[in-house]
Amino acid sequence: MPGLMLEGVKIIDFTTTVAGPACSQFLSQLGAEVIKIESPVKMDDARYYPPYKGSFSISFAAANIGKRCVTIDLKKLEGVALFKEMAKACDVFLENYTPGTVKRLGIDYDALKDLNPRLIMCSISAYGQTGPLSSLPGYDATIQAMTGLMSVTGYPDRPPLRSGTLVVDVSTAFCAALSICAALYARQISGIGTHLDIAMYDVGINLLESKFVDYANTGNVPTRTGNRFPFISPFDTYQTKDSYVMIICAGDGPFIDLCNGMGMPDLPTDERFKDIFTRNAHEPELKRIIEDWSTQYTTAEVVEKLIAAGAPVAAVHDIKQAIDHPHTQARGMLNAVEQPGVGNLVLMGPPVKASNYQVGKPGHTHSPGEDNIWLLKEILGKSEAEIQKISESKVMG
Amino acid sequence: MPGLMLEGVKIIDFTTTVAGPACSQFLSQLGAEVIKIESPVKMDDARYYPPYKGSFSISFAAANIGKRCVTIDLKKLEGVALFKEMAKACDVFLENYTPGTVKRLGIDYDALKDLNPRLIMCSISAYGQTGPLSSLPGYDATIQAMTGLMSVTGYPDRPPLRSGTLVVDVSTAFCAALSICAALYARQISGIGTHLDIAMYDVGINLLESKFVDYANTGNVPTRTGNRFPFISPFDTYQTKDSYVMIICAGDGPFIDLCNGMGMPDLPTDERFKDIFTRNAHEPELKRIIEDWSTQYTTAEVVEKLIAAGAPVAAVHDIKQAIDHPHTQARGMLNAVEQPGVGNLVLMGPPVKASNYQVGKPGHTHSPGEDNIWLLKEILGKSEAEIQKISESKVMG
Repeated sequence: MPGLMLEGVKIIDFTTTVAGPACSQFLSQLGAEVIKIESPVKMDDARYYPPYKGSFSISFAAANIGKRCVTIDLKKLEGVALFKEMAKACDVFLENYTPGTVKRLGIDYDALKDLNPRLIMCSISAYGQTGPLSSLPGYDATIQAMTGLMSVTGYPDRPPLRSGTLVVDVSTAFCAALSICAALYARQISGIGTHLDIAMYDVGINLLESKFVDYANTGNVPTRTGNRFPFISPFDTYQTKDSYVMIICAGDGPFIDLCNGMGMPDLPTDERFKDIFTRNAHEPELKRIIEDWSTQYTTAEVVEKLIAAGAPVAAVHDIKQAIDHPHTQARGMLNAVEQPGVGNLVLMGPPVKASNYQVGKPGHTHSPGEDNIWLLKEILGKSEAEIQKISESKVMG
Repeated sequence: MPGLMLEGVKIIDFTTTVAGPACSQFLSQLGAEVIKIESPVKMDDARYYPPYKGSFSISFAAANIGKRCVTIDLKKLEGVALFKEMAKACDVFLENYTPGTVKRLGIDYDALKDLNPRLIMCSISAYGQTGPLSSLPGYDATIQAMTGLMSVTGYPDRPPLRSGTLVVDVSTAFCAALSICAALYARQISGIGTHLDIAMYDVGINLLESKFVDYANTGNVPTRTGNRFPFISPFDTYQTKDSYVMIICAGDGPFIDLCNGMGMPDLPTDERFKDIFTRNAHEPELKRIIEDWSTQYTTAEVVEKLIAAGAPVAAVHDIKQAIDHPHTQARGMLNAVEQPGVGNLVLMGPPVKASNYQVGKPGHTHSPGEDNIWLLKEILGKSEAEIQKISESKVMG
C-alpha cells in the first residue's frame, strides 16, 4: 500500500460551519491527522445542520469524517495550557472564527509562534484579518452578495441571485488547503512556519475572474445575462422535449460540428452565422434555429446526436441524474462510509487522484471528545497519572 | 525581503483557457517559476479572449502575468526532445488538454517518469483521466450543467441557471494547485513524484456539498429555491428602497439582533417567530414583515442600522460597488500591473496572505516566445552554439 502525501502532518482543527471543516477534510483525504476541537459544554453547531439521516447530520459528516474529535474548554487557563501543548506537538493550527476571537482566547499566532516557530497557522475568515470590514462575521451568501458574484448570476429582468450551493465556502476551503500545503513545503526548506490569512472575500473577488478585469480596466459594469455568455454564440442553455442542454461553440470548428449534428450542414455558410462575430450579432435568430431543432428531441437524443458529431453539448442534470450517472461512480465520487449507530452513508469522494500515493482514508464521524484519551496519550505523551489529573480537572469535560 | 514559499519550484505550464492558467497563476503568486509553452505557429487562443484593453486580452493577463513564455513545436521530434529536457530540469508539468492529447504528443507521464522520477505531473481535464466520459471535452458551463450545480441555482418557476462566473474553473484551479503543493511536500520526504488527475467534474461534485449528501442519503432531490435557504429563515435577499440586502439569521441570537435593528424588539416573542423551526414554518409572513421595513430605507441605511445592532446583513453589490469598496483595496485585491505597449492594468490580487513569506511577484504578460533564449540558457544550460542550432531548426519558431 503506498503512503499518503500528508502522512504524519498533524493539524489542530478549531473550525465550524463549512469552509474550515472542508479545508481540513481535503487535507485529511491526503493523509493529514486532523484533530478537531470542540467545547466540552457546547458541541459544534454544525453537528445540528440539515440534511439528516434520523437525527444525524449528514452535511456535518460530509466535512468531518476521519477526524479525531477532542473537547477542550478554552475559556479555562488549563484548557489554554493544554492547547499550547498541542500547538507544540502539531504542524498546523487551522481556525475560522471572526478575527479577534483566538486573540481573546490567548491562542493567536503571536502567542504560539515562540512556543513552536515551525507552526503553520491558517486563519480563515469572512473578510480577512485586516481591512475595514475585518471585524464583521460573514457567510457564503453574504460574501456572494458583497463581492458582486450575485449581481452577475441570474436574469436581467430579475434580482441578483446566489449560486445554489456554497461555492465561496468550498473554494475558500481549497484555497486555504493550498496555502497550508505550500507552507508545509516551504517549511521543509526554511524551517519556519507562518500565519496564513485566507479571506472568503478575497476568494470571492478571485471568483469574479473576467468580470473583475472588465470593470477594473474598462469601466464596464457586467450584469446578469441568464445562461448566455455575452461574447460567444451559441453559448447558452437550449430547451429540449423534456429538459435543457448546454451548448457551447467557442470557434468555427465546433459550430460546424453542431450544424452537422443538427443535420444543417449549410448553416455555417449563412452570412449571419459565418464567423464568431456575426453569430454573436445574430444570437436571437441562431437560438431560435437551434431550439426549433432541439425541442423535437429529448435531452438524451440531443446529446447523443451532437456528441456523435463531435459538438460540445451537455445535459443539464438534476441532482439525481448527476449522482446516479455512471461517471460519478467511476470517478470514485460515491464514498461509502459506515457510521456507527447510523448505518451506511454515501459522501463525496476526494477531488484529488494521484499515482504513487494513496488518497482517501477510511473513517467515520467521531463524536465530541471521542479522542480525548488518544490525544493525551498518543500526541501529548501523558502518563496515566497525568491523564487522571486532567480528567478530574474537567477541562476536557 | 522575505522569500517566497515556492521559490525555486519550476513549473512547465502547457495549459489554455482558464482552470490550468489560473492554477499556475496561484502557484506563481507563491513564488514558483512558471514556464508557459505555446506552439510557435499558433499562440494560445486565450490570448484573444474578451474583455480587451485596445486589442490586448485582459482576461488572459489576469491568469498569466509573470509567467515565462516559450514556443516549442511539440509536433516535431526535436520539439519533444526539447520538452523532455525541460521535464528533466523542472519540478512540475501542468497540462489541461483532453485526455489522450499528451500521450499522442509523446509527453504523457509514462514517457516522462523514468527521465525524472521526481517529476510531479498534474493533468486537469473536464471529466478526468478515467471513467466513461473521460474522452469528452468540457467547459465550466458544461460541468455546471452535468454535475447538477445549475439545477439548484435559480428560481423554482424558471429553468436551471449557471453561476454567472467560472466558479468550477477557478475552484478546479485551487484544487489542482493544492494537489501540486501537497505533492511537492510529499516529494521532500519520499523523493518521488506523482501523476495527479484533477477533474472539473469531481470538483463540481464536491461543490454540491449538502445537496449531494441530501440526495445520496435520503433520496430527496434538491431543486431551485431562489436566494432562499430552505432550512433557515430569515436567509434570503430582501428588497430595499434602492436595491437588495442579504440577511441570514442562523440562530435565535442573530434574529433578536435583527429585530432590535428593525426597531421591533417584541417580534422574537411572537409565537410564529420564537424559534428556528417556527420562523421557517412562517417564512412568507416573516419575509413580508422584513420587507415592509427594509423597503423604507436605502441599502446603505438598512446595512448601517442592522450592523449597528449586530445583525448579519450584507449589501448585494454590483461589480462596480464591489471593486470600488475600500475593503477590496485594503485587502490588496487591486493588483496594478504595467503592461508594455498597453499601459496600466488592474488585475485581481492574490487570495493567499502569509506572514514570514512574501506573496505576489511583480510581472507583466509575456508575449509568445519572449523567453525562448532564457529557457535555453538559464534552465537548459545551452551553449551559444547549441542555441544557434536550435534557432536554425525552427523548432521554437
